[in-house]
Amino acid sequence: MKIAIYPGTFDPVTYGHLDILERALKLFDKVFVTVARNSAKNPLFTEDERIHLLHQVTRQYKNVEIDSFQGLLVDYVRRHKAVAIVRGLRAMTDFEFELQMALMNRKLNDHVETIFLMPNEKYTYLSSNIVREIARLGGDVSQFVPKTVLSALKRKNR
Amino acid sequence: MKIAIYPGTFDPVTYGHLDILERALKLFDKVFVTVARNSAKNPLFTEDERIHLLHQVTRQYKNVEIDSFQGLLVDYVRRHKAVAIVRGLRAMTDFEFELQMALMNRKLNDHVETIFLMPNEKYTYLSSNIVREIARLGGDVSQFVPKTVLSALKRKNR
Amino acid sequence: MKIAIYPGTFDPVTYGHLDILERALKLFDKVFVTVARNSAKNPLFTEDERIHLLHQVTRQYKNVEIDSFQGLLVDYVRRHKAVAIVRGLRAMTDFEFELQMALMNRKLNDHVETIFLMPNEKYTYLSSNIVREIARLGGDVSQFVPKTVLSALKRKNR
Amino acid sequence: MKIAIYPGTFDPVTYGHLDILERALKLFDKVFVTVARNSAKNPLFTEDERIHLLHQVTRQYKNVEIDSFQGLLVDYVRRHKAVAIVRGLRAMTDFEFELQMALMNRKLNDHVETIFLMPNEKYTYLSSNIVREIARLGGDVSQFVPKTVLSALKRKNR
Amino acid sequence: MKIAIYPGTFDPVTYGHLDILERALKLFDKVFVTVARNSAKNPLFTEDERIHLLHQVTRQYKNVEIDSFQGLLVDYVRRHKAVAIVRGLRAMTDFEFELQMALMNRKLNDHVETIFLMPNEKYTYLSSNIVREIARLGGDVSQFVPKTVLSALKRKNR
Amino acid sequence: MKIAIYPGTFDPVTYGHLDILERALKLFDKVFVTVARNSAKNPLFTEDERIHLLHQVTRQYKNVEIDSFQGLLVDYVRRHKAVAIVRGLRAMTDFEFELQMALMNRKLNDHVETIFLMPNEKYTYLSSNIVREIARLGGDVSQFVPKTVLSALKRKNR
Repeated sequence: MKIAIYPGTFDPVTYGHLDILERALKLFDKVFVTVARNSAKNPLFTEDERIHLLHQVTRQYKNVEIDSFQGLLVDYVRRHKAVAIVRGLRAMTDFEFELQMALMNRKLNDHVETIFLMPNEKYTYLSSNIVREIARLGGDVSQFVPKTVLSALKRKNR
Repeated sequence: MKIAIYPGTFDPVTYGHLDILERALKLFDKVFVTVARNSAKNPLFTEDERIHLLHQVTRQYKNVEIDSFQGLLVDYVRRHKAVAIVRGLRAMTDFEFELQMALMNRKLNDHVETIFLMPNEKYTYLSSNIVREIARLGGDVSQFVPKTVLSALKRKNR
Repeated sequence: MKIAIYPGTFDPVTYGHLDILERALKLFDKVFVTVARNSAKNPLFTEDERIHLLHQVTRQYKNVEIDSFQGLLVDYVRRHKAVAIVRGLRAMTDFEFELQMALMNRKLNDHVETIFLMPNEKYTYLSSNIVREIARLGGDVSQFVPKTVLSALKRKNR
Repeated sequence: MKIAIYPGTFDPVTYGHLDILERALKLFDKVFVTVARNSAKNPLFTEDERIHLLHQVTRQYKNVEIDSFQGLLVDYVRRHKAVAIVRGLRAMTDFEFELQMALMNRKLNDHVETIFLMPNEKYTYLSSNIVREIARLGGDVSQFVPKTVLSALKRKNR
Repeated sequence: MKIAIYPGTFDPVTYGHLDILERALKLFDKVFVTVARNSAKNPLFTEDERIHLLHQVTRQYKNVEIDSFQGLLVDYVRRHKAVAIVRGLRAMTDFEFELQMALMNRKLNDHVETIFLMPNEKYTYLSSNIVREIARLGGDVSQFVPKTVLSALKRKNR
Repeated sequence: MKIAIYPGTFDPVTYGHLDILERALKLFDKVFVTVARNSAKNPLFTEDERIHLLHQVTRQYKNVEIDSFQGLLVDYVRRHKAVAIVRGLRAMTDFEFELQMALMNRKLNDHVETIFLMPNEKYTYLSSNIVREIARLGGDVSQFVPKTVLSALKRKNR
């Protein structure tokens, strides 16, 4: 069984994340969507809220497990006997950062492969940051996040 | 009448901003230079100071209005019936960020077009950030900002 | 009256070009779509064919004129008293090349402004090159070019 | 069984290609290394020679099949019921081109996923082009290609 | 005597920095490794600790002097009659930032040349930031920093 | 004595090249400006013409020698006991290509260091290619090349 890890901050999960998740599910037998604890400096959603939202918006998928981790990603990958870390590639600046992380992870554990998937081009410039910012300013983000997340954002910005 | 919006933080306005403004004035009948309220985390100049400096350094131009806005830029654009948001394109990292903002703004209001203008190459790497930093360290920024701004920077760094 | 020039090889015109043209028409009173003669080394379509296709696919727009030019673009711009050259910005490699051309054109005639517009993200990676290549290999390019162009491509690849 | 396609020109195959192939083999049950016929304009090695070299340097791997294709890559992928196209990501210019191809392939067949793998950093800037050029100038490319390829390059440049 | 300045935050010094330093020593008669005071917002190591570590890991080199500076780098360069500022070029985002700094420094003092050197590719994606982060999470950074630095990191993260 | 090599096609030499050369002369005791033979596919100027033009436009500099080379650059560098290859860094696409070449040269001879210098920003987007193209179309390139080169270009385009 080929297992992959899809790590992230998911503050909050967007349609862009789900797009990458669906693509990963076609390639692997099981995908762990894993919230990096303490990775965001001032997260809008607590770790528990982010995990809860992930559970709600991934119900329709099989072979997905929601989890969180602390410490080094490569140690988490090793414990789960995963063959790959999955990352979405959006824009150029992503690219550099993602390659740096992938290379450092490989240096820390050379059995871990990072694979990059490209989201649908309509999500190319979508990020959790920009969703939080638009929601904070009262903008409509219904085209960027599932309904559950939309409601959660509204409660946060009330 | 074709109206354009030139939004920014302008903390403080530099010759690079004025270069872009002059170019925009050749293309549009009126240009609103609009300070984004609360956009900078720890601005050196207050919003009022930034607006005041903008007034002083744009006196020689016709068809310019200085303003500020809060909330979503696209709502401001719609209220002013503007046909375009004007942005200067400097370096590569700008490019990605600017495209992301332009795309998100279009998704929020598809009647808003963002146009990118290229400053004179002597301003290619000029930014308000670097002007503030050099001034803070006691360097001479007289080639980067108008005299009024120079004096204001000196008062801040005294 | 604000006139803009939208120059290109248009070998052949794609939906990406029309997307940029529509955006330019919102900003300017008249747009010249101008085929650069001899710009392509081994064009698939002759200059006359490219102009003919452009005429056919731009019938629905007002204020568009199809033309061609030889020599320096800046001279053409000056003769038509245009205020701007319009270019679409797609990917990163575009960006560098486009800035280089814009800067050189400005150095040759500093009254010429180049403005960059961003196509709909679904055309981000679309180019005439790739359309020609897919068509040559027998692929379906109906989502990339108007019907008239599709028929013309089929005749070329028969 | 998860099948992946690793397409390329392989003119000639380098250690960089083999590095990517080994990574792909950890992720998929079978990998087709597939020479794109007629893709290079003036190839140094004929299609048969390139396939022959690939056979020789991949003998030590299980689950690899060497093949060639003509026409659209997506049709080849569909015929082989592959779940993914594998591509190596080296430098920045690669990145743009690779994303363009991946997106166009997805538009032509949305069941085809392109995954990007990162080679060992010592192969970051290695390409068949530069190997051919150095060999042509009499340089030593033994650190870039397997011995069989080295001998073949020497015969070509005699 | 040709003197060069190698400025940085060095929080902490890594093998990547030493790689660049060794290359600079082949080109210049003397190299000042100069810690920028107050440049890091929340440094892990104090300025004195960073200077102490630099002294320890550069003992084996001749013609190196460890120093620190406050204020504008160009003033420091002028005082030391240096002909060049040395910077390592790693990834793309570096590139833009480095060019911006180099250009601004030249504008402040046009006798100062910035030269860019490329580290060994195995250090391409190495940075002090990522070393601090991995050490904080309990990862092994012994392949990225000299032993003295390793011990210092362990003491900080105890 | 520290010797550097400044290699290129110089078809023809531009003010951008001279800008880099002047910067290199401040750093090294002697600089060889070296025309790569057969490097351009269809050069406008023959190798002898390019060397002749270089001689004419570098008369005012001391410590410059004009030369040409065939074969591997690293062998030429070794024969001249040079400590560095000098390259100008202009735009982003340059950057990738230049790094690739620098890395490959280092792999072929690890005693050769490539240093990158940044031209004056007014030459950022200047290249021999674009000079040839503008001259061919009858444009005025007097701001990009010295008078001798201007006359030579006019004779070629007559």
